Amino acid sequence: MATVLLIGTLDTKGPETAYLRDYVRQLGCATLVLDSGILGEAVGIQADFTRAQVAIAAGTSIDALRNAGTRGKAVEGMLKGVRKMTLELLAAGKIHGVVALGGAEGSVLAAAAMKELPIGFPKLIVSPIASGQRKFAPFVGTRDVMVMHSIVDILGLNPISRTVFESAAAAIAGMAKAYELSGRGLPTANPSDTRKAIAATMLGNTTKPLMRVRPCVEAMDMDFVIFHANGVGGVAMEELIAQGQFAAVLDFTLSEIAGQIAGGFHVGGAGRMDAAAQSGVPQVIVPGCLDFIVFGAKHEVPDHLKDRPMYYHNPEFTLVRVTPEEQIAATQFLLEKLNQSTGPVTVIVPTQGASVMDIEGGAFYLPELNRQCWDILKNGLKVGIRYREVDAHINSDAFADVVFEELKQILT
Amino acid sequence: MATVLLIGTLDTKGPETAYLRDYVRQLGCATLVLDSGILGEAVGIQADFTRAQVAIAAGTSIDALRNAGTRGKAVEGMLKGVRKMTLELLAAGKIHGVVALGGAEGSVLAAAAMKELPIGFPKLIVSPIASGQRKFAPFVGTRDVMVMHSIVDILGLNPISRTVFESAAAAIAGMAKAYELSGRGLPTANPSDTRKAIAATMLGNTTKPLMRVRPCVEAMDMDFVIFHANGVGGVAMEELIAQGQFAAVLDFTLSEIAGQIAGGFHVGGAGRMDAAAQSGVPQVIVPGCLDFIVFGAKHEVPDHLKDRPMYYHNPEFTLVRVTPEEQIAATQFLLEKLNQSTGPVTVIVPTQGASVMDIEGGAFYLPELNRQCWDILKNGLKVGIRYREVDAHINSDAFADVVFEELKQILT
Repeated sequence: MATVLLIGTLDTKGPETAYLRDYVRQLGCATLVLDSGILGEAVGIQADFTRAQVAIAAGTSIDALRNAGTRGKAVEGMLKGVRKMTLELLAAGKIHGVVALGGAEGSVLAAAAMKELPIGFPKLIVSPIASGQRKFAPFVGTRDVMVMHSIVDILGLNPISRTVFESAAAAIAGMAKAYELSGRGLPTANPSDTRKAIAATMLGNTTKPLMRVRPCVEAMDMDFVIFHANGVGGVAMEELIAQGQFAAVLDFTLSEIAGQIAGGFHVGGAGRMDAAAQSGVPQVIVPGCLDFIVFGAKHEVPDHLKDRPMYYHNPEFTLVRVTPEEQIAATQFLLEKLNQSTGPVTVIVPTQGASVMDIEGGAFYLPELNRQCWDILKNGLKVGIRYREVDAHINSDAFADVVFEELKQILT
Repeated sequence: MATVLLIGTLDTKGPETAYLRDYVRQLGCATLVLDSGILGEAVGIQADFTRAQVAIAAGTSIDALRNAGTRGKAVEGMLKGVRKMTLELLAAGKIHGVVALGGAEGSVLAAAAMKELPIGFPKLIVSPIASGQRKFAPFVGTRDVMVMHSIVDILGLNPISRTVFESAAAAIAGMAKAYELSGRGLPTANPSDTRKAIAATMLGNTTKPLMRVRPCVEAMDMDFVIFHANGVGGVAMEELIAQGQFAAVLDFTLSEIAGQIAGGFHVGGAGRMDAAAQSGVPQVIVPGCLDFIVFGAKHEVPDHLKDRPMYYHNPEFTLVRVTPEEQIAATQFLLEKLNQSTGPVTVIVPTQGASVMDIEGGAFYLPELNRQCWDILKNGLKVGIRYREVDAHINSDAFADVVFEELKQILT
């Protein structure tokens, strides 16, 4: 029978978690309840895994956590236990989905465990915090976590909370049952049975050439897995590269590196480009979109950047030009990562511009700066890395066709 | 049979929507597909409701939308049609859930329709944008919209996107089937059969007194529905008050009014407090938390506010003191709304401080300013509004007990 794990701080959300549990059972699933609370005792519900057991799984005790001195330290300890127990249950094939009801702390604690669970494993968080000006990052990380706004506080059973909990129960029960049936939780027989896949990075800014490359890749009977280079997509790609999921990487949209240097929403992290370099997977690199960082609506652009050239992608996204110094720093970041690569690498530069705005007459067009950056690459790349310039714009068909040609070549 | 409505821009997400549809069917639901695309034609899928029909529902034509001049105008027109057709299908009892796969525009367009659907009606959006620094507001509004991070772009079927789409299909199918079974979609026999409910507003800052009031309310055999006063909860409460869902309102936590005056994350909107005033539902008002506005992590507090007293609620929330001028303006906003009320109102003021930080020795303590604000209320409230001061702090048991006493009185 499909089994759903419920994670909750049972000292404050006991009756609510019990209501959710009972509805999940009514829908034909088994349940396990894990108490992630630290302070009080479980109220109105009996945990299958008590807070004492969770603390022990974290290598400590509930009394030690309570006396940890700061709330942050206590939560951190508890979190370790929640994550460990959840992953053990998963590895033992004992659970087919996980759900949490939480306020601010409770949901972030459950999320920290869920963000470690594999793609496709059902995970759902219900919280009043999943609304308004709050951001997705603390809830989802790089995974397929489902988040539901609870409308009211997770505090009491009333006509609204009951309705919301019933929807949540139905969603997690539906997912857990389908997951169990699909056999996705079982170890796959032979990973090499699966089609080969190529990972790529894209933004709206580079959709055109990637759309042109896609059918060519698929015609080779390979999957083309496109990540949104928004500071999450690139990081998710890194994780999957490290797991050995891809035959090659087409890293075409590197604005996450500009973000790492200069800020904004799309920050790739210091480890961006490490996975491919370290695993030796073949890479085709196009230094696209190193010229901008990304913010939300125009009024949300920080004051100290307001004087820079901007491009209004749409009402929710504003692209801000990086300075020459930042673009050069981003190029150097790229160079350093590529020179650490252990597998074959081809770098392809579009000399007529590397983003929508980086074109003659465009808002971010600085051809001399580009030339400087391309020379940094050209002269700095270690022996063995192939470097090619194409006299075309990044979004032209001519450029896309060369990229596919080089991709094909590096695969053979 | 439970029927799921799929909304998608089929010119760019045709095969992906078809994959989702087929998996929903495989899980035992019927499906309807609505094309919300504007530019190209549906690819790899036949819509049940074509873009031409959607445009007609919006009172225009697809050609007129394509020639609307700006992308924004075209999207706005299409949105009207999507919303109208979805609400008509719902009213006719023909659908039991709605799901959308979308990129930036597509998901915001579907979300605009979903945010109008009633609480408890299953609604799910799958998008790569549901991650990172993006905010929940455009996706969920004041409703129980479920949002799922797709990890990869909704562009192509590959091992990752298929896995994510299968989870999404299982969630919406599970919810739609449970929704159909529950009969929640049917018109309720008699709303007065339901228990009476009292709405209240709370933040972490006012949890203690509301927790003390809650069992007292429940002992009266009434539901106590607590909204998180975070700029969404208060607005959601307003909508439900207008629908006649509550026997009384305990508006205890008014930081959304301070936010309306001075900014931050918890902005209640100009219409905050209108619904209760207009509907004549009895109100007990505690002017709590008018002294602060709320931001995210400390480093996210805008530069021009950095000199103000702050309170670090937790790593994700920073409370910033409003100026005396702003607190007075917020008090006047409150006064104006209360003086428009058509039903009974009691205002209860805690003279020893109205927030956690507003206490002798606390970071936001300005007793003379408070006195000025309470006098504005005391002297400005129209005849018939009951005004009471209690010489206690807002979070004391003594104050909570007076609040419940007054609440009981106003209900009878």
